[in-house]
Amino acid sequence: MHRVVTETGIMDANDKLADHNRDHFREKGVFVVNLMSAPGAGKTSVLEQTIVRLREWCRIGVIEGDLMTTYDADRISALGVPAFQITTGTVCHLDAAMIHHTLASFDLDGLDLLVIENVGNLVCPAEFNLGEDLKVMVFSTVEGAEKPKKYPLMFHEAEAVLLNKTDLLPYAGVSLDELCDNVRDVNPEAGIFPVSCRTGEGIEAWVEWLKTRMEESRRAR
Amino acid sequence: MHRVVTETGIMDANDKLADHNRDHFREKGVFVVNLMSAPGAGKTSVLEQTIVRLREWCRIGVIEGDLMTTYDADRISALGVPAFQITTGTVCHLDAAMIHHTLASFDLDGLDLLVIENVGNLVCPAEFNLGEDLKVMVFSTVEGAEKPKKYPLMFHEAEAVLLNKTDLLPYAGVSLDELCDNVRDVNPEAGIFPVSCRTGEGIEAWVEWLKTRMEESRRAR
Repeated sequence: MHRVVTETGIMDANDKLADHNRDHFREKGVFVVNLMSAPGAGKTSVLEQTIVRLREWCRIGVIEGDLMTTYDADRISALGVPAFQITTGTVCHLDAAMIHHTLASFDLDGLDLLVIENVGNLVCPAEFNLGEDLKVMVFSTVEGAEKPKKYPLMFHEAEAVLLNKTDLLPYAGVSLDELCDNVRDVNPEAGIFPVSCRTGEGIEAWVEWLKTRMEESRRAR
Repeated sequence: MHRVVTETGIMDANDKLADHNRDHFREKGVFVVNLMSAPGAGKTSVLEQTIVRLREWCRIGVIEGDLMTTYDADRISALGVPAFQITTGTVCHLDAAMIHHTLASFDLDGLDLLVIENVGNLVCPAEFNLGEDLKVMVFSTVEGAEKPKKYPLMFHEAEAVLLNKTDLLPYAGVSLDELCDNVRDVNPEAGIFPVSCRTGEGIEAWVEWLKTRMEESRRAR
């Protein structure tokens, strides 16, 4: 992240607004996922695969964060799920204030699950709480097995790490075992889910885990 | 990039220091490349391939920017090329001040080419001039053909765009033609080089282009 943002004041202000968002989400009974990854790791594809498996089970809404274009929101809308677009322009992450503003025009009533798809960036989004219940990250296995050690923060913050594009592993020369070991070194507690959005392999395990988390959260309220 | 950084003062201060770096590079007769990409697109692999083809032709030095670890600098040093590591911690890009500080301890004398490998991030590094002669970006074709439109700034700023991992194209369902069209839409002037660091395909064309640019720059001095 940019150095100036490490100033305590800015992060404190963000955390305060994130708490405010969290109160609002709780009041509405919505479980909120902050979905993060580097560009092109497959956040939107994971979301599509998740939606088709979950939409009979719960009511889903999506907030899409992108620098430019509405490509991702269009893909989600095509599945019959309400999608609100935040176009950040030059801002490389979503922050709690952007989500707060969005909630004025995005109706949470009747939703059980809100997924916030963050801007594609393996560094900055992990530093900004949005008021979510769960941080989830998608990592493209093709990016290399050593990346959890080179970019540790997001791996450390995420409660679930989806290792996507496993169908490309035989051609990419990347060891899934080594990658999993490196994720565990950075975050021993994370749920690790090797998946392929192209073949659907592994998606079921991730969706079942998410359902369990949502049910636990519902019971705790 | 983080919104606070769009404040004119911070960018102006960076540009001023970048000019200062540029003067220093000119004085030393060093051609400087700022090499940028998302994490895992293959910057270090491109650099290795470039070094083995160029090291008989000119004297090369490298500055490596990483959040954590010295993996990349170790790979470059193994090729017998001096590599200086900047570990940025939580900072998602290199800026002119970091380069300026580095120059106090990194000897440019006797170098013809300095490559600065930026932190892996498709967004923020493109906003910070370092005093380079040339911005070059590496993009992993596996990340998807639409990305130049979703993350336009770096594509727009780069004078050369290397489209890496072409060996994975047959398995990734990404159209190289569509990707090239999207790069051209964002930046009609850029040199576009499809390459595979695994097979070496396309690297020669990129290296010849770089040599031409270096020779033009030398003649212009």
